[in-house]
Amino acid sequence: MTTELRVAMIGHGFMGAAHSVGWRQAPAAFDLPLSPSMAVLVGRDPDKTAAAARKWGWAETSTDWQEVIARDDIDVIDIVTPGESHAEIAIAALAAGKHVLCEKPLANSVAQAEAMEQAAQDAAANGIHAMVGFTYRRVPAVTLMRDMIAAGRVGTVRQVRASYRQDWLADPESPMTWRLDKDRAGSGSLGDIGAHIIDMTQFVTGQSLTQVSAVLETLVEERPLLGESVGLSGTAAAERGRVTVDDVALFTGRLASGTLATFEATRFATGRKNALDIEISGDSGALHWNLEDLNVLDFYDATQPAGEQGFTRILVTEPEHPYLAGWWPTGHMLGYEHGFSHQAKDFVEAIASGNAPHPTFAEGLHVQRVLDAVERSSSNGSAWTGV
Amino acid sequence: MTTELRVAMIGHGFMGAAHSVGWRQAPAAFDLPLSPSMAVLVGRDPDKTAAAARKWGWAETSTDWQEVIARDDIDVIDIVTPGESHAEIAIAALAAGKHVLCEKPLANSVAQAEAMEQAAQDAAANGIHAMVGFTYRRVPAVTLMRDMIAAGRVGTVRQVRASYRQDWLADPESPMTWRLDKDRAGSGSLGDIGAHIIDMTQFVTGQSLTQVSAVLETLVEERPLLGESVGLSGTAAAERGRVTVDDVALFTGRLASGTLATFEATRFATGRKNALDIEISGDSGALHWNLEDLNVLDFYDATQPAGEQGFTRILVTEPEHPYLAGWWPTGHMLGYEHGFSHQAKDFVEAIASGNAPHPTFAEGLHVQRVLDAVERSSSNGSAWTGV
Amino acid sequence: MTTELRVAMIGHGFMGAAHSVGWRQAPAAFDLPLSPSMAVLVGRDPDKTAAAARKWGWAETSTDWQEVIARDDIDVIDIVTPGESHAEIAIAALAAGKHVLCEKPLANSVAQAEAMEQAAQDAAANGIHAMVGFTYRRVPAVTLMRDMIAAGRVGTVRQVRASYRQDWLADPESPMTWRLDKDRAGSGSLGDIGAHIIDMTQFVTGQSLTQVSAVLETLVEERPLLGESVGLSGTAAAERGRVTVDDVALFTGRLASGTLATFEATRFATGRKNALDIEISGDSGALHWNLEDLNVLDFYDATQPAGEQGFTRILVTEPEHPYLAGWWPTGHMLGYEHGFSHQAKDFVEAIASGNAPHPTFAEGLHVQRVLDAVERSSSNGSAWTGV
Amino acid sequence: MTTELRVAMIGHGFMGAAHSVGWRQAPAAFDLPLSPSMAVLVGRDPDKTAAAARKWGWAETSTDWQEVIARDDIDVIDIVTPGESHAEIAIAALAAGKHVLCEKPLANSVAQAEAMEQAAQDAAANGIHAMVGFTYRRVPAVTLMRDMIAAGRVGTVRQVRASYRQDWLADPESPMTWRLDKDRAGSGSLGDIGAHIIDMTQFVTGQSLTQVSAVLETLVEERPLLGESVGLSGTAAAERGRVTVDDVALFTGRLASGTLATFEATRFATGRKNALDIEISGDSGALHWNLEDLNVLDFYDATQPAGEQGFTRILVTEPEHPYLAGWWPTGHMLGYEHGFSHQAKDFVEAIASGNAPHPTFAEGLHVQRVLDAVERSSSNGSAWTGV
Repeated sequence: MTTELRVAMIGHGFMGAAHSVGWRQAPAAFDLPLSPSMAVLVGRDPDKTAAAARKWGWAETSTDWQEVIARDDIDVIDIVTPGESHAEIAIAALAAGKHVLCEKPLANSVAQAEAMEQAAQDAAANGIHAMVGFTYRRVPAVTLMRDMIAAGRVGTVRQVRASYRQDWLADPESPMTWRLDKDRAGSGSLGDIGAHIIDMTQFVTGQSLTQVSAVLETLVEERPLLGESVGLSGTAAAERGRVTVDDVALFTGRLASGTLATFEATRFATGRKNALDIEISGDSGALHWNLEDLNVLDFYDATQPAGEQGFTRILVTEPEHPYLAGWWPTGHMLGYEHGFSHQAKDFVEAIASGNAPHPTFAEGLHVQRVLDAVERSSSNGSAWTGV
Repeated sequence: MTTELRVAMIGHGFMGAAHSVGWRQAPAAFDLPLSPSMAVLVGRDPDKTAAAARKWGWAETSTDWQEVIARDDIDVIDIVTPGESHAEIAIAALAAGKHVLCEKPLANSVAQAEAMEQAAQDAAANGIHAMVGFTYRRVPAVTLMRDMIAAGRVGTVRQVRASYRQDWLADPESPMTWRLDKDRAGSGSLGDIGAHIIDMTQFVTGQSLTQVSAVLETLVEERPLLGESVGLSGTAAAERGRVTVDDVALFTGRLASGTLATFEATRFATGRKNALDIEISGDSGALHWNLEDLNVLDFYDATQPAGEQGFTRILVTEPEHPYLAGWWPTGHMLGYEHGFSHQAKDFVEAIASGNAPHPTFAEGLHVQRVLDAVERSSSNGSAWTGV
Repeated sequence: MTTELRVAMIGHGFMGAAHSVGWRQAPAAFDLPLSPSMAVLVGRDPDKTAAAARKWGWAETSTDWQEVIARDDIDVIDIVTPGESHAEIAIAALAAGKHVLCEKPLANSVAQAEAMEQAAQDAAANGIHAMVGFTYRRVPAVTLMRDMIAAGRVGTVRQVRASYRQDWLADPESPMTWRLDKDRAGSGSLGDIGAHIIDMTQFVTGQSLTQVSAVLETLVEERPLLGESVGLSGTAAAERGRVTVDDVALFTGRLASGTLATFEATRFATGRKNALDIEISGDSGALHWNLEDLNVLDFYDATQPAGEQGFTRILVTEPEHPYLAGWWPTGHMLGYEHGFSHQAKDFVEAIASGNAPHPTFAEGLHVQRVLDAVERSSSNGSAWTGV
Repeated sequence: MTTELRVAMIGHGFMGAAHSVGWRQAPAAFDLPLSPSMAVLVGRDPDKTAAAARKWGWAETSTDWQEVIARDDIDVIDIVTPGESHAEIAIAALAAGKHVLCEKPLANSVAQAEAMEQAAQDAAANGIHAMVGFTYRRVPAVTLMRDMIAAGRVGTVRQVRASYRQDWLADPESPMTWRLDKDRAGSGSLGDIGAHIIDMTQFVTGQSLTQVSAVLETLVEERPLLGESVGLSGTAAAERGRVTVDDVALFTGRLASGTLATFEATRFATGRKNALDIEISGDSGALHWNLEDLNVLDFYDATQPAGEQGFTRILVTEPEHPYLAGWWPTGHMLGYEHGFSHQAKDFVEAIASGNAPHPTFAEGLHVQRVLDAVERSSSNGSAWTGV
């Protein structure tokens, strides 16, 4: 029998549901070296927290995250609150010797992220692990993209295009949520979905962004306040509030090698629901992936005979593919939440092995610095701005 | 707190893993009127059964399904064994007053299926429910297809095309499995995957097949025996065995209205991994769906202005869509196993409400009769054969 | 300067327009060994013929095809009339020593086609060529498909699926045209579009169909007569007429090797405009093509590493590809009518070289025999019927 | 009989072939008010010019464009030379009272374009027309996109994304051509293909770009000189030369309404052969088009019921669609060169009617100003730069 690994999760919104699937499914799909148990769910509202815990399978609930962090019988703190509280919780948890999994973006400011990264370094010295929740890295097709680039299958990377398009704010009467409030969310499309494409670009190329030229824009400046929450949005109240974050973030960046990469993050791309799209052009091949068709990786091999070249639609469901051995036979599709199971698996394995999991807080901090550089460039007439 | 509903599952192969996800996830995604608990896993080999139970979260194990059926504290028997044993177990379980969920195809012969259907009728008189596991009915896009046809969105159905293509037997050295043995599997591609497209056609059109003209063929008649099982297939042993089932099933059928429908089931469609594809042509519209892109339903509305007509690619991830309220925000994809959660949900709700769940054993029997008619037609020079 | 090759075309409907493009464009795109000139256009109605000739660039007109055939200064007779008149014209033209290009299907009956094939054989002894207008063979992606199969890129062919779906008769008030009249058209979907997929299957596999099991069906038996002709259809007159041909043709065939092939030809596939779709599954690869995306050939290479397999979307616009050297740079798409230019090119080259062009009248006759076998099988309860 | 319109074309490269198709095919597809005749082909090398004229069907040839412009029997001058000579020829032709069709981009500098625009204005006073060859406007799906935006089918435009990706320079040993020489081509990807997406954005939205923030980059600075020309490229000579133009152009612009638009033009997008892609997001709909699938327009109608929304794949081959009445029945695809026939048709009709054709030289000048602003912004650290 494997040793238990007791997890407490702080927060119970959309991300709480997704992380719960990860903790519930990972041990059923993979042979893990430790047995994660869903020990405590922490939330401000005791009734809502209790209801969520009952539904998702958390054994206990609490309204006091500090008390939970102090408990000896908790090994892992999983933070799924809005960005404003990440730093305080994560730093405290690491200081208390808990492994920490923190949702992205790491924080709402570079200063917070720096403090978190320092805390993670300190904790690492004691064998404590910290990891940021960029789960899209763990969609099998994305992991395969990274592996193929690392193996030289596209040659030298020449251009990167990354975009993340949603349309849930296209309706100007769609109400305010915490995601539209700079104080709580840090930024808008930029931090919420732009952070994903920054991280993914760096992950698959193995290179960091060093500078950016950017423009941020708020297309609808005033919206009804939120009535009742439904999905990412909800019903509209009678009063109106001010949108304090960007709706659209457009930026061009340079990777360490000098390679240009373009980015678009928007919630106004009518008809595009969750279209994270990335394409890497190399001098001997190319790779393309889109979250709306997440089990497919398109690969162009420019070393094949000229008359037979084309984008090959790889269905990433073979046992050879990353994470697939744990799931279904060839051709049986995975969905959005499988990345959370892979995240749980990798985090548990890192804790068991003592090898640091990725993305590290240092990587999360770097993303935060890119977000900050984007905001500075945008405020400065799109001038090229160092990260 | 909701009342518990104690489930025992018999069998622990690929389908056992999938049904386990259903029982585990359904209560976390939906507000169910009863609380299903994963009480007992039954298998022949005690060690393998124990390992599977530990991994998938079943509380107890047993090697004696008859004993389990006899237990007072079990409410539901979930049968995921190969088709040869379905009849005996299901009839016994129903007689013992247990609700029964039985994997498809219902049985390996019409006679078995008839006996099962009779048992289900008898049990129904006592408020006991029986259901067949055609889970693809519960992929949201398929349920939506059915709803749209029922609502008249394509008008009168004029033609149906259904195919289910895999390629895992294309390699003649791919080994024998129980799926290639007529005694255990009943038939080959026909019963394994052809049964799905028969059921789906009848489900979405609301019509039964009445006659068929068919040809069955075994393309590779001898294969290595199975060494170790991996996914749907496995490693090859040194000895060889005889394939006693069809590799390819091609048939044309007529629905009750006289409408022609074409069917292909094959495991030799090189490059097609799990391509269940169905298209319904009506006199005012059409619908198309493919399992390899399972969150999408293509809808052609011939009542739109001529210059704006085209297939609309509906991403079936809106809260309005069937089952979606339980899952993620718009644009977050579901995978293969979500159908099993929907099946668990609907079965639990049927038990709670007393309304019979579908597909009924009568529906399963009808599919069995179609399978039988296909075999008779094929043996009789593709002559049209009544179901 | 190259020698002139003087062409007379008989007929000036839709096919007349398409063949005219072929004769006009081929010499501008390719370096031909003879210079085809558009000498005479023949039609029954002198005004309409003159108008068509003026528009399409034919130098003269005539209402008497027999007289034109008798002229010494005509080298080629191009027949684009409905099928009923093919035999009489082609046989007379061949007897008069003219090379003949005849639209498909070759004839309206096997007897006619046999006489034509005999005439072609007789003429061949005198160096006169006869060719059938299955132009889809000359879409570059289809020619490439044939070449790749011949080169063994998919291994042994295991299954063929071919369908040709249109929807221009889905509306029951769409009027009668000559294509719905058995006396003029021979058959309906079967001969009009089914003939294409029969020919293409035989062309790309290099194998003949030897037997079929079929069902033909007329879905709408009475329609308004045609008022004014527009495209393939037209306006509805007040009176109604009887449809005497099939609307839908479904059949299964066996190739010489025994391989099964499925066929569907329909004009009731709502939303499918011109969807000729063919897929060849071999034991080491597969090929797929669709006329609605005609510049693309999908190739699955089962000999690639398992984790990198997938359908490769070959854009057939490279200089290496068949016929492409005559056209535009890579990535510049060809359209429907380019096949007619390729047909003209190949026919001119055959005349110049003395090598027989394909498809021969013998191939056209074989297609006619398959059409006939389909009709006989359908009349005989779908019994397997030899070609 | 219609009056003749005598055309002289100057230049005989790739664009000469394409324009020749336009002049040859337009009168055969459409009922034109004037009869264009292919009178004179002008080129520097008499042999090559004669060969091209013979192949493409030009009646005469000349090596002296000034002499041809002076001829009384020439009505139209069609300029398909590299950009460096556009201004001199066009201005002279307009002054001589010839209608002028000039390939894009209008010129190699703003100053040249201004002079040309002034010449066009002067000529217009005398009923002489000038038009720029942005033929992609006349792909039916693009014209339809413009029409639908103008008709309010997407509401207010919120974002525009336009990219044009090719890969023929991805190989660093692909040789120099005149397109890589700043003196002859003006710029690289920017003017060659970027000009198309600038024009198309302005055309479909009906709005001009007012400012840009840009970065241009040359990825491969030295290449073999050109040996023999083949397609857009050719064989490599032994010596090497310096690339003096951009390989990649990335820029963000603002339309008159303030709407943000992103642009990418590149010849290094491995695997993308001719991927001009444009997407318009409006507040009640969206439109998307890609040149590699040029007969398709994707339309998202956000006013449909939520559960039935999706991108509708409109096959732009209906008689209702722009230009389609002249071509084939529904579902028969057009190719790259059809835009040139539509251009010829519209230009002839403008000359006959006296209504000015578009795109005007003023529009061509505006594109030139955008190109210039892009270069200035790129030289100035991507600062926002007025057009």
